[in-house]
Parts: sequence; C-alpha cells; structure tokens
Amino acid sequence: MTEHLDVAKLQRRLADFAAARNWERYHTPKNLASALSVEVAELVEIFQWLTPEESAHVMADPETAHRVTDEVADVLAYLLQLCEVLDVDPLAALSAKIDRNERRFPAPGNT
Amino acid sequence: MTEHLDVAKLQRRLADFAAARNWERYHTPKNLASALSVEVAELVEIFQWLTPEESAHVMADPETAHRVTDEVADVLAYLLQLCEVLDVDPLAALSAKIDRNERRFPAPGNT
Amino acid sequence: MTEHLDVAKLQRRLADFAAARNWERYHTPKNLASALSVEVAELVEIFQWLTPEESAHVMADPETAHRVTDEVADVLAYLLQLCEVLDVDPLAALSAKIDRNERRFPAPGNT
Amino acid sequence: MTEHLDVAKLQRRLADFAAARNWERYHTPKNLASALSVEVAELVEIFQWLTPEESAHVMADPETAHRVTDEVADVLAYLLQLCEVLDVDPLAALSAKIDRNERRFPAPGNT
Repeated sequence: MTEHLDVAKLQRRLADFAAARNWERYHTPKNLASALSVEVAELVEIFQWLTPEESAHVMADPETAHRVTDEVADVLAYLLQLCEVLDVDPLAALSAKIDRNERRFPAPGNT
Repeated sequence: MTEHLDVAKLQRRLADFAAARNWERYHTPKNLASALSVEVAELVEIFQWLTPEESAHVMADPETAHRVTDEVADVLAYLLQLCEVLDVDPLAALSAKIDRNERRFPAPGNT
Repeated sequence: MTEHLDVAKLQRRLADFAAARNWERYHTPKNLASALSVEVAELVEIFQWLTPEESAHVMADPETAHRVTDEVADVLAYLLQLCEVLDVDPLAALSAKIDRNERRFPAPGNT
Repeated sequence: MTEHLDVAKLQRRLADFAAARNWERYHTPKNLASALSVEVAELVEIFQWLTPEESAHVMADPETAHRVTDEVADVLAYLLQLCEVLDVDPLAALSAKIDRNERRFPAPGNT
C-alpha cells in the first residue's frame, strides 16, 4: 500500500508517463532544471504578498491547501525526473549533504 | 542501512539540524519557498549556457557531477522542510497528481 | 511623445497605480523581489521546452510574441518598483557595473 | 552626461561587450531568460530570511546596499540583452502594459 509512495516507484511512473507521450526528447537536464524553476515559482507565487504570519496559516484554507499540495507535487515531479536523467539518487545526495553539514556546522551545544 | 534514505528520516534530521541552531523562527513557509527558489536557481546556473547535448553529459565531469548532486540535495532539503512546516506529504501529493494526470491526459495509445 | 518611455516616468506611473489601489503596504523589497522572480519564471516558461533554434524564432509567432512582450513588461514593472522602494537608480547601477566589468574583464583584443 | 544612462546606449554597450568576447552564440533567448532567472534569484537570496521590516531597511548597511545595487544591475543587464535579441522595446512594452492595466483595473476612486 505505501509501496506507491516509494521514490523509485514514483520515478518509474513519471518515466512511463513521459515515454508514453514521447516526451523524452524534451527532457534534457537543462530543460528539466528550467521546468523545475518554473514550478517552484508557482509555489512562491502563492506566498509572494503574504505576511510571515499569513504564510504560516496557508493550509487553513482548503482551496489554497489544495493549490500548495499540487505545486509541491509538480516541484517533486520535475526534481525526480531531473534526477532520473542525471542518474542522481536524491535521497542519498541529501543524506550525504546532511552528514557534511553536521560536521562543518556543529550545533552550538556541541562545540 | 537504507533506513537513512527514508524521506521521513531525512525530514527528521533536517528538523533536528534546524532546531539545534534555533533556526525555526526563520522557517516560515514563505521563507522556505524563497530559499527553495534560490537553490533551484543554483542548479539552473550550471546549465544556463550549455547546449542541450552538453547538458546531457554534465555528469561526465566529476567536479560538475559533484556540484549538480550537491545542488539537488539543497533543493530536496528545502522542499522537505517546506513540506514539514506545511504538513504536506510530498510523496502522497505526487502520487495523487500522477493519478490525476493519467486520467486527464490519457496516453495516445490508450485513447 | 517618447517622454512616456522615460524610466522615471514609468516608475511614477507604477507608483501612482499602486498607491491608488492601496497596495504600498504589500510592496516591501522582499515581496517585490519574490514577485520579480515569479514574473521571470513566466518568461522562462515560454522557452522551457524549446530548442535553442526554436527559442531564437519565438517572435515569428504573433501570439507568442505578444506573450513574450507582456512578460518582459511585467518583469520590468517589478524591477522598477523594487528599485523605487530601495531608492536604487537601475540605469546608473548598470552603467557602473559595465564600467567595472570592462576594467575587470578586458576584451581579448585589448589585452 | 546623463546620456550614459540611456537604455539604448546601455544595450549597445552590453552588445559590444558580448561581441568582443565572442559570446553571442551563447545569447539565445532561452539562455538569456535562464540567466535572468539566476540573477533574480541572487537578489531574492539577499531577502530570503529577512522579516518584512528588515527587508525595508536593507539599504542602511553599505555592504548590503552595494550587493543589492550590483544584483539589480545584473538583472537589468540580462533583461536588456534578452530584449535586444528578441527585438522587444522594454519601455514601450511596459508603457503599453500600464495603459492596459489602467483600463482593466480602474482605481477604486474612479469606478
């Protein structure tokens, strides 16, 4: 059941979706990075005129909550497709980055 | 072992990292969406002057490959932190979106 | 006649437009910078799946040409409004930057 | 004296600068739109963790003021170069857009 929510499976579904529509030729790393930036801007747009406080309560309105969730999905979709064509493992990349940051920037209490 | 690579665990590590540095007050949805856009731009920057063909071979150079992987990690880090403060499940959001897209845009062979 | 096309006059018209709608409270530098990034993404979106060659001929299609021109206007509008609230003279800033770049990066034939 | 600050002259200087370095082949509309988005992100980065109030006082610190001015120059530089290769007049585009907006969104007092 939660199998559907596995990153590798989502990548496979995205790849199949693009292949069935013959979109692979558009999916250069350069184009996918651009598309990723466009989707992130659609997320930024939701917050652009809000105060910090308003932005913290954005999920209280069902319509905005839906829009936010939808844009998060689009951002993740292009990030995973970019990782697929680059053969980058996004979770391993982030795990390694957190390891590095923990060494480079020790928490105040640990210094 | 692959437990480290679980999305929820990465979110927990990111939250702990921020909490230990007292950064939570900066992490409004509005600010995290901005930070996400800045990290995506650092990814776009790698590709901005490349031809489509050059962009497809960007991982062949170890230094560029490292830079790309690092920026992917930063993008995912801010996306997961944004999802955390918004209480959005990014994998469920994407799964639901793919379901919707498969219904809305049937593949040519399936029409 | 070309007076309309003076940067300072356009800034004045934009400021009057915002003031008449009581929008000044939204126009913090932070918000205007976000809005600028959102408008630039709408420009990027036009080009995201195009080949370099297709992107070079984008003005040949009247509808796309109109869309491009409209997005350029929006980008310039937010850039000028940002400059207004920051009290930055954009043309003087660019002129000074070109001066600096000409000194820092001499053209190959001039070295 | 203020001739230096004329938009058309700045465009000419930017074009000469690029031509002297043989950069024209990189300056497709697609690449320039990407570069514009990257420069805007560098501006957004300055504001990303600031409160609205802090963002309003960003020019009080000379170092930040210099950085802001420099990024504004870079944004304008790529916007003007994009307009040059597209043969779009940015000031005429904005003037026409303000005309349209004044008709479409009459100010409250004028309705």
